[in-house]
Amino acid sequence: MNFPKDFIINGIHCGISKKPGKRDLALFYSKRKAKAAGVFTSNLVKAAPVLVSMNNLKKSASDIRAVLANSGCANACTGKRGLSDAIAECEMTADLLGLNPANVLVASTGVIGQYLPIEKVRKGIDDLAEKIVDDKNEPDNAIEAIMTTDTRKKASSGSFSIGSKKINVWGCVKGAGMIHPELKGLPACRRGRHATMLCFILTDADISQNLLRAALEKSVEDTFNCVSVDGDTSTNDSVFVLANASAENQAITKKDKYYLKFEKALGSVCLGLAKQIARDGEGATHLVEIEVRNAKDKVSAKKIASTVATSPLVKTAIFGADANWGRILGACGRAGVAVDPRKIDVYFNNLKVCKNSEKTNYSEKLAKKILNREEIKIILDLKQGNKSARYFTCDLSLDYVKINADYRS
Amino acid sequence: MNFPKDFIINGIHCGISKKPGKRDLALFYSKRKAKAAGVFTSNLVKAAPVLVSMNNLKKSASDIRAVLANSGCANACTGKRGLSDAIAECEMTADLLGLNPANVLVASTGVIGQYLPIEKVRKGIDDLAEKIVDDKNEPDNAIEAIMTTDTRKKASSGSFSIGSKKINVWGCVKGAGMIHPELKGLPACRRGRHATMLCFILTDADISQNLLRAALEKSVEDTFNCVSVDGDTSTNDSVFVLANASAENQAITKKDKYYLKFEKALGSVCLGLAKQIARDGEGATHLVEIEVRNAKDKVSAKKIASTVATSPLVKTAIFGADANWGRILGACGRAGVAVDPRKIDVYFNNLKVCKNSEKTNYSEKLAKKILNREEIKIILDLKQGNKSARYFTCDLSLDYVKINADYRS
Repeated sequence: MNFPKDFIINGIHCGISKKPGKRDLALFYSKRKAKAAGVFTSNLVKAAPVLVSMNNLKKSASDIRAVLANSGCANACTGKRGLSDAIAECEMTADLLGLNPANVLVASTGVIGQYLPIEKVRKGIDDLAEKIVDDKNEPDNAIEAIMTTDTRKKASSGSFSIGSKKINVWGCVKGAGMIHPELKGLPACRRGRHATMLCFILTDADISQNLLRAALEKSVEDTFNCVSVDGDTSTNDSVFVLANASAENQAITKKDKYYLKFEKALGSVCLGLAKQIARDGEGATHLVEIEVRNAKDKVSAKKIASTVATSPLVKTAIFGADANWGRILGACGRAGVAVDPRKIDVYFNNLKVCKNSEKTNYSEKLAKKILNREEIKIILDLKQGNKSARYFTCDLSLDYVKINADYRS
Repeated sequence: MNFPKDFIINGIHCGISKKPGKRDLALFYSKRKAKAAGVFTSNLVKAAPVLVSMNNLKKSASDIRAVLANSGCANACTGKRGLSDAIAECEMTADLLGLNPANVLVASTGVIGQYLPIEKVRKGIDDLAEKIVDDKNEPDNAIEAIMTTDTRKKASSGSFSIGSKKINVWGCVKGAGMIHPELKGLPACRRGRHATMLCFILTDADISQNLLRAALEKSVEDTFNCVSVDGDTSTNDSVFVLANASAENQAITKKDKYYLKFEKALGSVCLGLAKQIARDGEGATHLVEIEVRNAKDKVSAKKIASTVATSPLVKTAIFGADANWGRILGACGRAGVAVDPRKIDVYFNNLKVCKNSEKTNYSEKLAKKILNREEIKIILDLKQGNKSARYFTCDLSLDYVKINADYRS
């Protein structure tokens, strides 16, 4: 992992989560002023921390120093009390670290409709601030602290050079259910999608705030906004990127080749994290990539990919390793895109199971073998144009239902 | 049950279905010329029988005599061969009963992408024709013959009078999975939704074809087009109504009070059937009615109701009898409708669990009790206007996944 300079991150248990001893509060801290950008859920029902972070970014996007994140409670649908709790989190963090509350961002994930146990949080922030002061950088602890139903720690990193300077990009993410992000930038500029996914990306690049934001918004479009576990867009989705300039590179201030290098590195980290989310989807036994090829335009391709990726019938068939391509075609036909229903080809990996919307002479045995693999690719060829899109999802298993039938208890 | 005059319906086993001895071919026959109307799936991938029935209705909507329906094979994604098989079904039926092929409609449900075993169907039509000639009206057999994963026979009926004449309306339906009908009339005039549901409604009313069609299109909008089991709109959804005038009422030829009586009776039969579909959804343990109140307009209300009704997180919570109203609010916020996210109330039956988007002081014990009932009502009050809509769905259970993970085997 390439970890950027001058960031300290850690996580502790303070008792928000009901799981005994599980870390539930994380702090991402930059020793230096960092430029920051964020994209947030487009769900109209936005959690208090989302509203507070959006506001702080509006005020202070060129001077963010810390992001506080908790699991165990979403602080969503909590009204005025929820808002004042989220603001209090910023104040408490700022107080201890000698910052302005607007330098602090917040994020929460967990049960909706419950209030934060703010005294436990206060104690937790105390503990975290101590670790920061002691220079204790423990990424694994921070990652654990944001996990809910996640079964794996999810991180990804990359690096590139500008002249003699090496620039690191590192990110971690949580998210397993309520995953269908429709993230949009600030101010509301795009339609987004769904999940609780929280993502924290840190880089030591020196880059202008505008370009940092542009790179983030571009990166999420083909990564987090193309992941679905269950089609349910969360009230809490947030992706943050902090850039603290500690790499001391020549500052990236225009869309030149260095900007493109940065964008590529950031996109690659986001893609790595997005795929890890789908693979670790609640109850998932497969990572499924849906590719729609030769569509008239990219929006249509994405719409079909998204519809196939969220079809319960497609997802249960994959759980059963059943090559039921008819359900894939059925989902494609209801996506609201004008396709020629007589011309679609469907592949599992490279096995063509359907040609011109009719069965090929494929081997069911081979199809089953492919569908029993951990990673599966489904390709739909529309033969209408030359645009494509892909989407990442997982199967719908018995465990998904078990996990979600009694999530609160 | 009020069964209309001069219809004979029956069902037999001919071997299309893999289940030994299960009836799989049904015939709905009118002794007299019947006016007919149909609404069909809006999925662009339409099964061959849908295309053939749409075509026959265009040619001969005032003279339909028979509808042949099978389970066990959807005859969808079957290309030219599928189309000629569906046409052959009309011809074989017409031959035996002395009709023109355009007097016959067809419908299929079952696995997508497989060809009809047409010789078995031929033999089956022979057997059915014999029963028709012998005047053997056995509705239960017809209903069984259209069932796939259905666990209950679903029928509904009603009657009303015009002067001294009693008019009967009777209908049966199949449908448990791939249920989210988006039905539209002929020619394509509305956006529809998803399922394989097949519905056959018979009436002895004397009514003009135009009004029969108008009444059907109105009736499905608040009934079948407001049912979802899994959000997957089928390639095969079809609803037929046949009116053979055997009640000898004064013909209904304009939108007068008699038309309204007819429309009401038809709507009531459709509603009864729609609710039975949701109750018998694959793996369902609850019938769930979602009511959205005080929306700005009906389209918005329906959009929110539909989003809540198809949310996997809401549906798994109901399976677990977990009063997780936060998920309901989350689904509402992602429905694509401009709601005020701070003003929403949520009820389970009459228990207000959320007021102005925040938790009330409700009893979890009582909420659990309500959610353990077979029928549950979820109400969202948006406080924006005075329009409302309701949607019928079921929970998402372990059995749903089991049923659909190996549907083809």
